[in-house]
Amino acid sequence: MALGVDYAAQQCSVARTLEVVGGRWTLLIVRDCFFGVRRFTDLREHLGVSRAVLSERLTHLVDDGVLARVPSGEREAYELTAAGLALWPVVVALLAWGDDHASPDGPRRLFSHAACGTDLDRTGRCPACGTSPAPYDVETRPGPGSSGPQGPSRVSAALQERRRLLDPI
Amino acid sequence: MALGVDYAAQQCSVARTLEVVGGRWTLLIVRDCFFGVRRFTDLREHLGVSRAVLSERLTHLVDDGVLARVPSGEREAYELTAAGLALWPVVVALLAWGDDHASPDGPRRLFSHAACGTDLDRTGRCPACGTSPAPYDVETRPGPGSSGPQGPSRVSAALQERRRLLDPI
Repeated sequence: MALGVDYAAQQCSVARTLEVVGGRWTLLIVRDCFFGVRRFTDLREHLGVSRAVLSERLTHLVDDGVLARVPSGEREAYELTAAGLALWPVVVALLAWGDDHASPDGPRRLFSHAACGTDLDRTGRCPACGTSPAPYDVETRPGPGSSGPQGPSRVSAALQERRRLLDPI
Repeated sequence: MALGVDYAAQQCSVARTLEVVGGRWTLLIVRDCFFGVRRFTDLREHLGVSRAVLSERLTHLVDDGVLARVPSGEREAYELTAAGLALWPVVVALLAWGDDHASPDGPRRLFSHAACGTDLDRTGRCPACGTSPAPYDVETRPGPGSSGPQGPSRVSAALQERRRLLDPI
């Protein structure tokens, strides 16, 4: 993939992962898929990225086995594959660092264990259950650092409510 | 920073983190700093990146508070700051995903808890102690997926041995 060529000589799993998800916008697309975004149009509006760039990134993510194209009514939608769902700890780690180091008003989003309602800790573990719930068992809601909807997109509106990860927006 | 401008509208801690560490090569520089690489020349040789790109990335990482320039004999060296050390869970998550999805021969590197010698699990926790050791308490060694030293660099040679993270190379 575009960013991968020069990483190829790096015999390291960090480098190999970045070959797949290190490209500009790529991890933000993956994040949006965890939030339940599935349609090209919604991704484009929510990310504010050009059609051409988004299309190229999605093609790579499908080719690399992170996303799958699935039918959705008369259109196509994108879903995380098992390999894509396995990126949840990467997203959690990026969220935690950003909350601590780039969000002076506190976390922008909060995450809780759907099964018991307890807020997850910063490593994605449920302190009540002692487990790290899979994304489909996690709910998210705006946190104290949130500054409300980002523009008029459907996705921004949906993310103002408490919702379960992966539930289609 | 270069990649950040277009992420700025994304009110999300994933996006803010990627503004700091999402640029090409940036997380590989951070990974090398965890491995104990400190000198510009060593980073350049080990990463195979141009002097200009490396210099620009290091300047951003210093400006963003992830690395600090420190004196080292007659030269300067780079060290992870507290904010930089806090990226360890991000590196661990990227390592785990790459080991699972892009390393058919098994993990390229293994990590163990220096205090007790137990191998860390894929989330960076020590199963014996039930804690997630800080990087200075972690040792690394080549794993079954390693294919030996990458070229003749000092860093590649050092990484063939068991060594403690952050110990200067």
